[in-house]
Amino acid sequence: MSLDAERWFTETCEEGGSAFSLRVEERVHAERSEYQQIEIYRTKKFGHLMVIDGFVMLSSRDNFLYHEMMSHPALFTHPDPRRVVIVGGGDCGTLREVLRHPEVESVVQVEIDERVTRVSEQYFPELCEANDDPRAQLVFDDGIRWMGEIPAGSVDVVIVDSTDPIGPAEGLFQAPFYRDCHRALGEKGVLVQQTESPLFNISLIRSVHEALREVGFCDARALHYPQCVYPSGWWTATVATKAAGVNSFRSAAAADRSFATRYYNADIHLAALAQPQFMIDGGEV
Amino acid sequence: MSLDAERWFTETCEEGGSAFSLRVEERVHAERSEYQQIEIYRTKKFGHLMVIDGFVMLSSRDNFLYHEMMSHPALFTHPDPRRVVIVGGGDCGTLREVLRHPEVESVVQVEIDERVTRVSEQYFPELCEANDDPRAQLVFDDGIRWMGEIPAGSVDVVIVDSTDPIGPAEGLFQAPFYRDCHRALGEKGVLVQQTESPLFNISLIRSVHEALREVGFCDARALHYPQCVYPSGWWTATVATKAAGVNSFRSAAAADRSFATRYYNADIHLAALAQPQFMIDGGEV
Repeated sequence: MSLDAERWFTETCEEGGSAFSLRVEERVHAERSEYQQIEIYRTKKFGHLMVIDGFVMLSSRDNFLYHEMMSHPALFTHPDPRRVVIVGGGDCGTLREVLRHPEVESVVQVEIDERVTRVSEQYFPELCEANDDPRAQLVFDDGIRWMGEIPAGSVDVVIVDSTDPIGPAEGLFQAPFYRDCHRALGEKGVLVQQTESPLFNISLIRSVHEALREVGFCDARALHYPQCVYPSGWWTATVATKAAGVNSFRSAAAADRSFATRYYNADIHLAALAQPQFMIDGGEV
Repeated sequence: MSLDAERWFTETCEEGGSAFSLRVEERVHAERSEYQQIEIYRTKKFGHLMVIDGFVMLSSRDNFLYHEMMSHPALFTHPDPRRVVIVGGGDCGTLREVLRHPEVESVVQVEIDERVTRVSEQYFPELCEANDDPRAQLVFDDGIRWMGEIPAGSVDVVIVDSTDPIGPAEGLFQAPFYRDCHRALGEKGVLVQQTESPLFNISLIRSVHEALREVGFCDARALHYPQCVYPSGWWTATVATKAAGVNSFRSAAAADRSFATRYYNADIHLAALAQPQFMIDGGEV
């Protein structure tokens, strides 16, 4: 991570041997919270940029891709999603998308670092516009512990909207956490989790899918979508289900949805389910 | 474009306000051909990298995405693709993919700069392994003029595998060239062209589609796919058809194909046809 003399913010990705940069006008915020370093930059073409511990979290311009793909596919996969839990998600963009679904009755967001949400309220107000929805409850706590303590079968959809699987988020990519999610979910429960790049992190994706099946999910699948500001520009959301296959989503409801989207639609949902041949064949890329 | 002290090759994209870098071990080749500056770098994680006039053309690691998407969708869209013309395509990766189709009887590749092909033979030999196929003819000439001079109805599929729409390739994105392609194609003819990033170049994509319809193509559609080394990491191949819609491809033949691929399959073909909601709704991103 660096901001050089020519005003580029750069995130390097050593395992990919690549780096991605955005032209920056100014760093408008920097603080060390209890958990991590949080920075906000005003970029030239991507609006505001949030960076945590040197890693790009989101930009104003292209976060719609991530937030729509972390919410709508999972919610249209569950037959009747009323009770949703978001683990992480401090920028509140996923929460906003979830609350667009009229059948949702409650969303509990469990973010470990309250400062991420407070900074988002200031620099990404459009993502926080639904935070006062009476169906939403913002909890600032350890999502791993929290998920282990809620009643069995009390949730329809769990959304794991976290940072990379290093540091505080590491436990979110492991079997004990998935076992707690499986227990907390009702019998038709659906889990979705951001699972990094198909080009750079295929081993992680495979190990997540194995761990999800190991704890009892009947299906787990990487949904693919573009995400310009993340390493390789290509990203996945893994959807796992307790009852039906990930392929069987409510496509008619997705096509007739009552809310606006910028990326997601029923065709895009189906498209995201398509697996590149190398993911079917195995091996490295 | 620069190779800095820490051995990053960087391509900046001013219109996107972004830059992409690859960690480089060595620049192994540099020359000024009659048309352009050609460089080859040995990267740390992406194999060889070809750069022309400062713009990334391809890497060993991820060119399979581009080359498969520039060939197989168009060939499976035509009902009986026997005669193929590639305009540009000097690295020969698209040519190799086209020649995997057993029904193809002839492929003429018209590349303006013979040096691109000669350098590829040296640094990307795997892409040039089909250059001696008796069905292939390598012509080094101006593809725009060449396309205007071949007999009407003499081609089944035209593949425009060019650099960006600036400099020598500019005319490849304009109506007069498309009119010549339309004339050269048989009644069920199919054209495919690389058409840049949906995030950064949506105006170009729309103007290309308009121009294609203006000269008589009945359908034109952007197929979407990831391409890590190109600006925004997200790319399009526009497919245009003279007879049927772009949606109607030979999906059974695609599923039963006799050759190996790493990205393409019938599901991925269908997935690439899905249009993000912002492309349906219009407006900027």
